[in-house]
Amino acid sequence: MIRAGILGGTGYAGIETVRLLLRHPEVKIERIVSQSYAGKKIAEVYPNLMGICDITCSALDIDDIAKSCDVVFTALPHGASKEVIPALYDKNLKIIDLSGDFRYRDVKVYEKWYGQEHSDPELLKKAVYGLCELHRDEIPHTRLIGNPGCYTTCSIMGLAPLVKAGVVDNRSLIIDAKSGVTGAGRGLNLPNLFCECTETMKAYKVATHRHTSEIEQELSLLAGEEIILSFTPHLAPMKRGIFATCYANLKKAYTTGALLELYRTFYKDEKFVRIYPEGSLPEVKHVSGSNYVGIGLTVDPRLNRVIVISCIDNLMKGAAGQAVQNMNLLFHLPEDTGLTEAGMYL
Amino acid sequence: MIRAGILGGTGYAGIETVRLLLRHPEVKIERIVSQSYAGKKIAEVYPNLMGICDITCSALDIDDIAKSCDVVFTALPHGASKEVIPALYDKNLKIIDLSGDFRYRDVKVYEKWYGQEHSDPELLKKAVYGLCELHRDEIPHTRLIGNPGCYTTCSIMGLAPLVKAGVVDNRSLIIDAKSGVTGAGRGLNLPNLFCECTETMKAYKVATHRHTSEIEQELSLLAGEEIILSFTPHLAPMKRGIFATCYANLKKAYTTGALLELYRTFYKDEKFVRIYPEGSLPEVKHVSGSNYVGIGLTVDPRLNRVIVISCIDNLMKGAAGQAVQNMNLLFHLPEDTGLTEAGMYL
Amino acid sequence: MIRAGILGGTGYAGIETVRLLLRHPEVKIERIVSQSYAGKKIAEVYPNLMGICDITCSALDIDDIAKSCDVVFTALPHGASKEVIPALYDKNLKIIDLSGDFRYRDVKVYEKWYGQEHSDPELLKKAVYGLCELHRDEIPHTRLIGNPGCYTTCSIMGLAPLVKAGVVDNRSLIIDAKSGVTGAGRGLNLPNLFCECTETMKAYKVATHRHTSEIEQELSLLAGEEIILSFTPHLAPMKRGIFATCYANLKKAYTTGALLELYRTFYKDEKFVRIYPEGSLPEVKHVSGSNYVGIGLTVDPRLNRVIVISCIDNLMKGAAGQAVQNMNLLFHLPEDTGLTEAGMYL
Amino acid sequence: MIRAGILGGTGYAGIETVRLLLRHPEVKIERIVSQSYAGKKIAEVYPNLMGICDITCSALDIDDIAKSCDVVFTALPHGASKEVIPALYDKNLKIIDLSGDFRYRDVKVYEKWYGQEHSDPELLKKAVYGLCELHRDEIPHTRLIGNPGCYTTCSIMGLAPLVKAGVVDNRSLIIDAKSGVTGAGRGLNLPNLFCECTETMKAYKVATHRHTSEIEQELSLLAGEEIILSFTPHLAPMKRGIFATCYANLKKAYTTGALLELYRTFYKDEKFVRIYPEGSLPEVKHVSGSNYVGIGLTVDPRLNRVIVISCIDNLMKGAAGQAVQNMNLLFHLPEDTGLTEAGMYL
Repeated sequence: MIRAGILGGTGYAGIETVRLLLRHPEVKIERIVSQSYAGKKIAEVYPNLMGICDITCSALDIDDIAKSCDVVFTALPHGASKEVIPALYDKNLKIIDLSGDFRYRDVKVYEKWYGQEHSDPELLKKAVYGLCELHRDEIPHTRLIGNPGCYTTCSIMGLAPLVKAGVVDNRSLIIDAKSGVTGAGRGLNLPNLFCECTETMKAYKVATHRHTSEIEQELSLLAGEEIILSFTPHLAPMKRGIFATCYANLKKAYTTGALLELYRTFYKDEKFVRIYPEGSLPEVKHVSGSNYVGIGLTVDPRLNRVIVISCIDNLMKGAAGQAVQNMNLLFHLPEDTGLTEAGMYL
Repeated sequence: MIRAGILGGTGYAGIETVRLLLRHPEVKIERIVSQSYAGKKIAEVYPNLMGICDITCSALDIDDIAKSCDVVFTALPHGASKEVIPALYDKNLKIIDLSGDFRYRDVKVYEKWYGQEHSDPELLKKAVYGLCELHRDEIPHTRLIGNPGCYTTCSIMGLAPLVKAGVVDNRSLIIDAKSGVTGAGRGLNLPNLFCECTETMKAYKVATHRHTSEIEQELSLLAGEEIILSFTPHLAPMKRGIFATCYANLKKAYTTGALLELYRTFYKDEKFVRIYPEGSLPEVKHVSGSNYVGIGLTVDPRLNRVIVISCIDNLMKGAAGQAVQNMNLLFHLPEDTGLTEAGMYL
Repeated sequence: MIRAGILGGTGYAGIETVRLLLRHPEVKIERIVSQSYAGKKIAEVYPNLMGICDITCSALDIDDIAKSCDVVFTALPHGASKEVIPALYDKNLKIIDLSGDFRYRDVKVYEKWYGQEHSDPELLKKAVYGLCELHRDEIPHTRLIGNPGCYTTCSIMGLAPLVKAGVVDNRSLIIDAKSGVTGAGRGLNLPNLFCECTETMKAYKVATHRHTSEIEQELSLLAGEEIILSFTPHLAPMKRGIFATCYANLKKAYTTGALLELYRTFYKDEKFVRIYPEGSLPEVKHVSGSNYVGIGLTVDPRLNRVIVISCIDNLMKGAAGQAVQNMNLLFHLPEDTGLTEAGMYL
Repeated sequence: MIRAGILGGTGYAGIETVRLLLRHPEVKIERIVSQSYAGKKIAEVYPNLMGICDITCSALDIDDIAKSCDVVFTALPHGASKEVIPALYDKNLKIIDLSGDFRYRDVKVYEKWYGQEHSDPELLKKAVYGLCELHRDEIPHTRLIGNPGCYTTCSIMGLAPLVKAGVVDNRSLIIDAKSGVTGAGRGLNLPNLFCECTETMKAYKVATHRHTSEIEQELSLLAGEEIILSFTPHLAPMKRGIFATCYANLKKAYTTGALLELYRTFYKDEKFVRIYPEGSLPEVKHVSGSNYVGIGLTVDPRLNRVIVISCIDNLMKGAAGQAVQNMNLLFHLPEDTGLTEAGMYL
């Protein structure tokens, strides 16, 4: 059995990781680290785990983690991750970091978008960006995964086939993304109160959201040229889900069918990618609670523009699910081990 | 492998049964019968099943079901169930009926509360009421299970220990129950539109809801005397969940602790029952998506009255989950096979 | 024009008072006092007021309030209210206090249920409990109103006719109440986060909620004997609304129709009370956004028990609406001035 | 008093019109016509009107309408409107049509996008497109208003200043719009059930929604050249609201401040338009329940693209509110009569 520890295990991404590892047939959770709840049973913090998980949350103790675990999931706020990860890495652990700290190829991009110096640029170089469908081959060769963001996973997977094939004007890319409220985390912020965010909708960090840089990094890699694009995040009154509506101008005329064929080829053999047939599009509830990505598209022949819809569950393929997928790759398990649930339509 | 068929597989209880059987290690779904969607792939009706379930819905064909299946789940409206079940029963199938048609010991009670004659009272006698925690021993000896209602499971389990122990005034029982909207099914009824039932709450069928008779039947059995009680169903703006607040006058003074001890004893060794410690109470999100029942209570010493809170997921322990639990018992499998998921706090 | 000030104007009850006073034809808001937002425009805190209200929030200045206002609404947490109200009272202002500090006839009841000493028991004696339908005659003779709580208004109005008429066993009263989340206020508490309270339901402060004592005070007054009762508050995933399901054993047999007649008589000429015809019951969305109270009932002849459903908007008739109704009475205006809106079904 | 009739008064747009006219100081509702509820009191269909509106719904009777009313609001499905409106027009009534039937300058555009012949192209020529802020001067000279759609009002108002000023590439316009579920009406359609549309999000009619043609008509008029654009409608789990995120490439570099100044100038003296200061953006709850339009914007200097956020309440400024605004103009009343409510933040 793989022995796992989760740091920041009582946040929303952390507890989703716990939930997934509890049902993973090859994993035993050894430690759940939580600053706020150290000494408290996890089943008291999340009573859905009563009778299922008897672990008591502990304070951070690197040596103890090193002795007890083979893999560590760090579900800490960015900034905090990069302080603790070097020490964990030195202990020879495998690390899957759910923050933004180890996702960048170029430390300057990180420092520009995150507004802080990176404390360990050397370690950053050893990290692999854990978008499994794009970096599957590199992942087994590292011990440090920068697990992608939720918006980014959804957006990149929605646009990758078009960009890779070179069929769109790379200057025309626009991603209009809508997120469920779990994406905002469990922090006590006024805008996340029920009465503040139900029955409404808003945009935030327009043209400045950090995930923009992550999307640009990966699409630029696929394109072989620098891509800059518009990314607009919105908050919608639902718990889970990322829904990305992506716009791109086509270089020449394509039918919806032809582009769908491009997607089917690009994602052939991918277990978690569902390309929708022409005339049908993914919705959040098709993927909610699962690790699947739903992708559909329509060409608007009037404008020679393609509109791609991409959908994930932000806590699953957008965080904990992909983290487990990365762990499976790191430990040479079948990639979908513990991740085959259908998700909850209801 | 147990070969299973689901009748009415595209309703909410039906599709939840499908979802659970898909992940059950000992079951293979052979048929999904649906009047409305015959000929259509189930993954087109519920796209969360894309790539997971390739079955095409079929029209009802008793002979075909008999040949292909060992067990049939009938998730049909009451009335419809009792028309088809006798034919299935004659084919030597095991049947788990999710409607109200085979839940009664006394056909007169059925006919009074359902306002229609029962077409097969003889078969009714062979049926066992499938509340597993109360009728575990009888279940393996039948081929026809009357799977309990959602409100009833939650209410009976909340009050059973008190009634069995004889510590409450049986004339004082009041159950104030709140249900999520999946309980109303997938029918096209105006009150179930999003804009009609979000941001509001209502009571319905006050003092006349059919589940009253089911609760009374089971509690009377436990009490050894006829119990009649108040049951008030409400609709709350959430998808899943039954939340029952139960009131009972105590015959003499008991502490909260003493009554909790009574519950712990009554439900000892029950895998799906969680008795909450004093000072803490179950919430819908503690059981949502799981087969668990959460029960907590408080004694009001001013009035010598106990207030019991009981919580289930109506589609799980209140329908499909309990149906699978019954199947496990019918086939001598460990009772929690395929039912160990923690549920979704988020 | 009546010159009004609101203390605690940026909380949910405070801002609802602002909203109502802005459309009141006889009132001009002169001051909105807010500790947290002093110096900030109210329209920045609540942008629905952009272009409608140009007031800047101010810090508390008793002398300034005294000079600028005729009436003050104090929408402060209990405890805080009783510290500031004596000084306001000395300035000859009329005061409508939305906290629990001036609602009690007996200071000992306050001190027992609120767990703190009352700093001004003499002033408490001068206050009138502002449930207008019950204390209409006393209200114009005071300068200090203890504006009733939301649960209490809904519960008292639902049970008053029965208790006054003496037709029920006063020892049998049970109120099972469900509240929208605005009732929890705007404070940064984990359970009020969207992801914590959507798609779920819970009970809290079972048998110990402070509003119990307020309900008991008023029903005892009506009964002419001491009443103690069960009150169970629940939180439901909606913004507005109190929905109270009230149970009482009847002393002798009554029909639903006879009891409805009792209610119609008790509430005859009441502008804000709607008694539902037999067979029909109020829902939250019938009163949401309005100052109306909806009341319906059903007798269960099997048990000789009556179930009364009472519904209000907690921010309106349960707080700000009733406060304005009290102000109208204090200033000898028609009681429904500024309060005639139909409410939002949608 | 203006005597008003509402046809289709029990649909969502119809009942919102009723709600607004009930509080309008210069209007008396004389008739509410409803096929489905003829003979039933409107307060039984919408119990929030109990004690407020005593009108009984009637079947359609053109002569009766003609005698009883000065103005008629037709809130019928498109197609149905154009069958009844010519007869009403002949009776010398003023008509405000909330359907799409009388919104087009060019009958061919209607026939192409609505897939049906227009039965009265001559009458269509007499109609004025009732987007008050753009056609204020023409409105008083007609008796037939084509009241704009919800998506269109929000989108046009969000883009009009840019297009009019000629500062954007007209070929680059993209509108990504999100709607509340009331926009789908009160029809019994599976996707509108609570359990189907809560906790999810979807796009629909991508590149083919009829409102596209309406937006294009009006923006082309402002631009003085034909504009075609991308319009993507989405459904979000909320009752009210249109949230449009609009993208446009700038012809040359502009600051956010400069473009905001352009908007402030374009909309100066407009009572219902709120231009947000730099750094702040509208949200649905800022306008919900009101007739206001909230507009904010951000320039992305990296791409020289502007992102405009425009927000309305679809039932108000997107339907009934604007209809009343049109009526005010038709009858030479102050344009905001009966429309000054702040809206519900909560």
